Amino acid sequence: MVKLRIKEILSLDGNNSEITVEGWIRTRRESKEITFIEINDGSTINNLQTVVDKKIENYESIIQQLNNGSGVTIRGRLVPSPGQGQNVELLADKIQIHGDAPVDKYPLQKKRHSFEFLRTIAHLRPRTNTFGAIARVRNAMSFEIHNFFQSRGFLYVHTPIISGSDCEGAGEMFQVTTFKLNEAPVLDGEIDYTKDFFGKRSFLTVSGQLEGEIYACALKNIYTFGPTFRAENSNTARHLAEFWMVEPEMAFCDIDLNMDVAEEFLKYIFASVLEKCKDDMEFFDKRICAGLLKNLDHIINSEFIRIDYTEAVERLKRSKNNFEFPVKWGLDLQSEHEKYLTEKLFKKPVIITDYPREIKAFYMKANNDNKTVRAMDVLVPRLGEIIGGSERETDYEKLQNRIDEAGLRSSDYWWYLDLRRFGSVPHSGFGLGFERLVQFVTGMQNIRDVIPFPRCVKTLDF
Amino acid sequence: MVKLRIKEILSLDGNNSEITVEGWIRTRRESKEITFIEINDGSTINNLQTVVDKKIENYESIIQQLNNGSGVTIRGRLVPSPGQGQNVELLADKIQIHGDAPVDKYPLQKKRHSFEFLRTIAHLRPRTNTFGAIARVRNAMSFEIHNFFQSRGFLYVHTPIISGSDCEGAGEMFQVTTFKLNEAPVLDGEIDYTKDFFGKRSFLTVSGQLEGEIYACALKNIYTFGPTFRAENSNTARHLAEFWMVEPEMAFCDIDLNMDVAEEFLKYIFASVLEKCKDDMEFFDKRICAGLLKNLDHIINSEFIRIDYTEAVERLKRSKNNFEFPVKWGLDLQSEHEKYLTEKLFKKPVIITDYPREIKAFYMKANNDNKTVRAMDVLVPRLGEIIGGSERETDYEKLQNRIDEAGLRSSDYWWYLDLRRFGSVPHSGFGLGFERLVQFVTGMQNIRDVIPFPRCVKTLDF
Repeated sequence: MVKLRIKEILSLDGNNSEITVEGWIRTRRESKEITFIEINDGSTINNLQTVVDKKIENYESIIQQLNNGSGVTIRGRLVPSPGQGQNVELLADKIQIHGDAPVDKYPLQKKRHSFEFLRTIAHLRPRTNTFGAIARVRNAMSFEIHNFFQSRGFLYVHTPIISGSDCEGAGEMFQVTTFKLNEAPVLDGEIDYTKDFFGKRSFLTVSGQLEGEIYACALKNIYTFGPTFRAENSNTARHLAEFWMVEPEMAFCDIDLNMDVAEEFLKYIFASVLEKCKDDMEFFDKRICAGLLKNLDHIINSEFIRIDYTEAVERLKRSKNNFEFPVKWGLDLQSEHEKYLTEKLFKKPVIITDYPREIKAFYMKANNDNKTVRAMDVLVPRLGEIIGGSERETDYEKLQNRIDEAGLRSSDYWWYLDLRRFGSVPHSGFGLGFERLVQFVTGMQNIRDVIPFPRCVKTLDF
Repeated sequence: MVKLRIKEILSLDGNNSEITVEGWIRTRRESKEITFIEINDGSTINNLQTVVDKKIENYESIIQQLNNGSGVTIRGRLVPSPGQGQNVELLADKIQIHGDAPVDKYPLQKKRHSFEFLRTIAHLRPRTNTFGAIARVRNAMSFEIHNFFQSRGFLYVHTPIISGSDCEGAGEMFQVTTFKLNEAPVLDGEIDYTKDFFGKRSFLTVSGQLEGEIYACALKNIYTFGPTFRAENSNTARHLAEFWMVEPEMAFCDIDLNMDVAEEFLKYIFASVLEKCKDDMEFFDKRICAGLLKNLDHIINSEFIRIDYTEAVERLKRSKNNFEFPVKWGLDLQSEHEKYLTEKLFKKPVIITDYPREIKAFYMKANNDNKTVRAMDVLVPRLGEIIGGSERETDYEKLQNRIDEAGLRSSDYWWYLDLRRFGSVPHSGFGLGFERLVQFVTGMQNIRDVIPFPRCVKTLDF
């Protein structure tokens, strides 16, 4: 007698073989002589229909607990199903109830719950179809990220979470401390951080890029995949205070090769998840976001448009669109502009390069025009920017000047500058917010629904 | 003309084919007519010997920069090597220097540097043989962890980093805040955390287990692999304030199956890394820890010993060893006791189960004797405890009592308790400190050398 997962069982012939199934009851339906229950074990969105004859041995003792939500082990025989919607069904011989879920108390009843409500019971929502499917898709995407980079010889590097510096000199950051708040020691009117745990002020990282560059400048191709943080006071459907980021960094790589990798990466992930999570993706297409599959297919088969910022601005100016925000060389593109380019003008992903240096980070390589930098943003229809990257400045003095201009202290970046003093090579990389990608793939509206336990302003439950 | 990595190049025949190599110079040696340089690109610990004839075109202009550490692109022809130690070598036709590394300034010179010194230049140490090898082994182990669980149908779950609760009620934790220190708002003499970013006191997680249980109790088999934190004031070669942890959690799984998975997991990781990182592992065996390969092979081919705590205590009492710490039922086992069991008595890994409840965490399932709990610790020779796990308490009232006994507030654990109110099933899991495992596999003495950027007491550089 073998223990199989339901995903495997559903692909078997019903040849009367004896099997044992473990899972949770999703629905229960009564007829005269029999009770139908559907079992799910998380291996697939599909349930195993199980037929419980009222004559089985312990029927009377279990019937009260045979509820939606109960955890059960069932021994029975697998037979062809006469009903529609499944090839096989299980004829139960013996049912063991591990723990039931009283109908009057269990919050997850057989009805459609709003995503808002489900966020308040994030400890139970993975038991629903939608959140089970998200968990499987998120898992598949995570693993395919590793597969993509590993099969290309990239090394996975764990960059630090607690940081003594602020990568971009931009983000609002969380502070990390072991001081008792309001009782931190003070020296000469300033907080004496030499007495804090790390002996200096410390934060949660906003990016692993700078440390990633260290490893790329030693071992060529690396990637990170880990949590990053922004203490942004944005209570929206697009912002998380804690999210996972993917950041490849490649030595001997210019902006063009960087774009090639980014495009190949997105297509690979989309194609893999469509293949590996077929049932779940059909569910999202049907229930969450109509046209999702077609949309992803279209991207997989498109060549991404590549234009520079200056041309993008020209195109926007020439358009007949009434934009809310001004279009002018030197200003950043707004969401409405990105939407116009990807959804109306080109109708596919667009990579925009060579942005004005003033609106981009200090580490981006300056072009010869001294006005633009080798930045690249990958925009996709429906979502906007999904990837941001650049070729990195490799010239020691130029980089130092950019650090000064950004109002940062170059002494904080001594090791980053050292990479340009010793064995400096051209290198590039990009960053991708993983939850945005999961949102894009699943069509879920709110980013809080694609991470198991969202952390946002005033939100820290579970 | 193809760009290959050096790992691939070294496996080719030297058939005079033209290739381009990108990497960094590791050594330089002069003879009368030619200069030999060795190139490394991070793909392998082995270098590509490159022969630079003094007659090549730009020789005069590059010779001053052809130093240890310089980043170069070399075009040339691959030929059989007459020298020892390599099958092929590269005859350089054209050399491009991207950035050199002046001999009088570059800290990494061709000599043996101490690991202590290299920690002070963690931005350059991945360019050495040892730290390149560690990066490759760490990468391979990370990926094999995913492969192990993915091939068995486990879902990778990202449990949260910022937490509102303390998993074991034990650890010393880092606080996370956006308050200005010493200026936090106060209400009724207490800090008013409703005004902090999350609206409540928040910490860095010490474990993803409790959230992992949520997903296991919905989708059966899951694992986490992410950073965890301890604000322990331990300045040792075994402690990190930030480290990565692997935590599988399995529903419908008792302590015996849990032990099976733990044993299979360790053997799989060891066998995979020996196969995938052959050259690096030979390097560690030869230069870092003699007998390493034999030791790992022995574990792969051993059946782990499984005894309960009570028997372990008996065995220790019967031994003729002079232990520094007392051996008595009810006291925790010390490192010297673990060493005796794994290195002297059994000479292989030992799994100890059923510890006294007083010395184990609140969530472990009580045995019927009411004295012990279904804990399991996996001990290995040389290192001691490498895995800690348990079957989890599934009984609502027993769990609530244990939470009370541990001095925790059960209201903080309402959702964890809910897993026992609704569809409760037997489940088990374990935790493994990833850096301890990398230390064990590489034989490195200090845990700060197996993580790219160690965070410890008063240590937060890079």
